[in-house]
Amino acid sequence: MELYGYFRSSASYRLRIALALKGLEYESHYVSLPKGEHRSPDYLKLNPQGLLPTLVDDGVAYGQSLAILEYLDESYPEPPFLPDDPSGRAQVRALAQIVACEIHPLNNLRVLKYLQGTWKFSDADRDSWYRHWIADGFQKFEATLAASGEAGRFCFGDHPGLADICLVPQVFNARRFDCPLDDYPTTMAVYERCMSLEAFETTQPKYQPDAF
Amino acid sequence: MELYGYFRSSASYRLRIALALKGLEYESHYVSLPKGEHRSPDYLKLNPQGLLPTLVDDGVAYGQSLAILEYLDESYPEPPFLPDDPSGRAQVRALAQIVACEIHPLNNLRVLKYLQGTWKFSDADRDSWYRHWIADGFQKFEATLAASGEAGRFCFGDHPGLADICLVPQVFNARRFDCPLDDYPTTMAVYERCMSLEAFETTQPKYQPDAF
Repeated sequence: MELYGYFRSSASYRLRIALALKGLEYESHYVSLPKGEHRSPDYLKLNPQGLLPTLVDDGVAYGQSLAILEYLDESYPEPPFLPDDPSGRAQVRALAQIVACEIHPLNNLRVLKYLQGTWKFSDADRDSWYRHWIADGFQKFEATLAASGEAGRFCFGDHPGLADICLVPQVFNARRFDCPLDDYPTTMAVYERCMSLEAFETTQPKYQPDAF
Repeated sequence: MELYGYFRSSASYRLRIALALKGLEYESHYVSLPKGEHRSPDYLKLNPQGLLPTLVDDGVAYGQSLAILEYLDESYPEPPFLPDDPSGRAQVRALAQIVACEIHPLNNLRVLKYLQGTWKFSDADRDSWYRHWIADGFQKFEATLAASGEAGRFCFGDHPGLADICLVPQVFNARRFDCPLDDYPTTMAVYERCMSLEAFETTQPKYQPDAF
């Protein structure tokens, strides 16, 4: 198995966590977003979307991190990332999607670059934009966790799964932009428990060989 | 089953298509986004995220349309929205996520309102923003479809599934903002085939009782 990622890409970090939780070995390839290596002809041949990450398994290249997380869970079922019943699965997926469909798409590097390049956002404007969507999304995450009645040691019950895998990298990004996170105590308690696990701790951005 | 949606919400349209494909009966509730009804205390009790759509099944309320689509497919398997094998499933989910994680989150009403309210984007600026992300996302969708070798009459093979369900509402929105779509012939051929099916045609925004 091969993973193409970038240390600071939170979608890449999701996959590093997932592969560690499943205990799967893989070869790492480092694709620099600031250098634009994700738009090189070679990378586009592998991933026509020109986005990170890409996972190669059995000679097939897969894009879109949520799709890859589901692929890993279906192909390597232990430990599972989702509960057994459709209702529980929907709740976990919905939490993951608050991060993957409501926060991260608005705050990733290509959006921030577009705001600053085309729309002349200053650094302060960019940070204000970033913090707006973190506050909006984390409020939704916290409210959904609180209402579910299923949050235990982790987002759903007592084992880390799809929602935790998406949450933790988003917290890292939020902290990088100095976003206040005190208003989300249930969410942050889950985050802290995740970080006590090796699969989340050892895969964090700063420990990656391409980190600077 | 009950569906809370809004005629012009493309995530709501995804669910109308899905329920029609599965042949499931449901009661409709209309929640006006322009009137802010999605932020009313009653709606927030049902969906703490304050987003559309919400599906209620067996007394449980579900949010996030992609999670709901998977829930419907797991709970009501025929006809399936995903292929049988993990590799095919990953490809279909990745296409759906180009729409749900790369295009729609940047162009939905709450983002456009934030751009115009807080950042004083003019109507022309807003439309330029909108068209930028449509062009970016549809180029990714077209390139991925072309590279997959699996596109047939629909996004993957000869039956409509998760990717088609996400694609069609996004085309409707793109047309509403007069986005040129000539550069995406494979994508648009799939769109046209979808629209020849009753499940896609009869559920379109303009036929909804809350349309204006």
